[in-house]
Amino acid sequence: MLSVYEAIRRRRDVRAEFTGEPVPEEVLNRILGAAHSAPSVGNTQPWDFVVVRRPETLDVFAEHVADARRRFAESLPDDRRTTFDPIKIEGIRESGMGVVVTYDRSRGGEHILGRHTVDDTGLFSAVLAIQNLWLAAAAENIGVGWVSFYDEPYLTELLGIPGPVRPIAWLCVGHVAEFQQVPDLERFGWRGRRPLADAIHLDEF
Amino acid sequence: MLSVYEAIRRRRDVRAEFTGEPVPEEVLNRILGAAHSAPSVGNTQPWDFVVVRRPETLDVFAEHVADARRRFAESLPDDRRTTFDPIKIEGIRESGMGVVVTYDRSRGGEHILGRHTVDDTGLFSAVLAIQNLWLAAAAENIGVGWVSFYDEPYLTELLGIPGPVRPIAWLCVGHVAEFQQVPDLERFGWRGRRPLADAIHLDEF
Repeated sequence: MLSVYEAIRRRRDVRAEFTGEPVPEEVLNRILGAAHSAPSVGNTQPWDFVVVRRPETLDVFAEHVADARRRFAESLPDDRRTTFDPIKIEGIRESGMGVVVTYDRSRGGEHILGRHTVDDTGLFSAVLAIQNLWLAAAAENIGVGWVSFYDEPYLTELLGIPGPVRPIAWLCVGHVAEFQQVPDLERFGWRGRRPLADAIHLDEF
Repeated sequence: MLSVYEAIRRRRDVRAEFTGEPVPEEVLNRILGAAHSAPSVGNTQPWDFVVVRRPETLDVFAEHVADARRRFAESLPDDRRTTFDPIKIEGIRESGMGVVVTYDRSRGGEHILGRHTVDDTGLFSAVLAIQNLWLAAAAENIGVGWVSFYDEPYLTELLGIPGPVRPIAWLCVGHVAEFQQVPDLERFGWRGRRPLADAIHLDEF
């Protein structure tokens, strides 16, 4: 089984490498179990996972994302648009499965230990679950691609998500032909890696 | 080296078990390197890590958090307050080190691939780095406790964090006597675990 550091190193945001081979139920359950073991503020576990395999839903969501892609491309200056054009931004149909992670701010009632001073900690909890999911998937040789080119009300409606629950990520989850060594956005010249030393400060920012 | 699943299972939010033994520089660098390998929207890497070891800073922040704890306790109804009283909420001095994770929304300029539709994805990136840090720490037998009982402007001022950078977590990071098997909030009766099956939905919420 992959070590933590190896999973962290190998993990990629996958777009073009999905094979479409179905993920066995027990593998998916292990991955979702890892997500569900994340820490959460006041132990609220405010996440849910909507596993989307219905082809019509994948199709219609992929269309919506393609629209959002066009809108973003149009907003770019020429040099950025040239860099953006070859970048694949999703693998919604090709992966064959979406896992939509949601955040329920009402879970746990009124008194949330650790959320009364910093309200966002509830939202953060659901994001921690996503990283557990991603690393467990890497350990299972399963790829994950986080799609964020969508309008939140559209996705909410599409999956029948009730208020105040909020979808925070559409993850394409599926078998991959390979994991890239270098992140797509680096390979395609969108943005490179920052040295670690630049990110570390001592005692003061 | 610990497998991903074992690290996910063993990871705890540590409060009372810090020994105060200093974390060697190379271990801290591996842990921060893991955090820095997190995915980020548009590959912006919008996080920074302020490593706080200055005893006066730890002291003054611990005092601030104790105040916030009192305010929270006073806001609780009697039954919740009784459950909250024995729960230790921080290990700021005892761990001997804080790692403050910040989010810089200006990093990457104006056109952020993947943030134009969902603005929070920038913030989410920094949270993904926190979970990498946490799991790498578990693999190194180092404990992490996320303290969120603080006022954000106070922490910003304390560490000289410039706008628009935002501190999103104070993590106590240090050697531990042991990792608890059961999360503190479960052991102390604050809130129990939700079955995984309740968190999974098929095709619709």
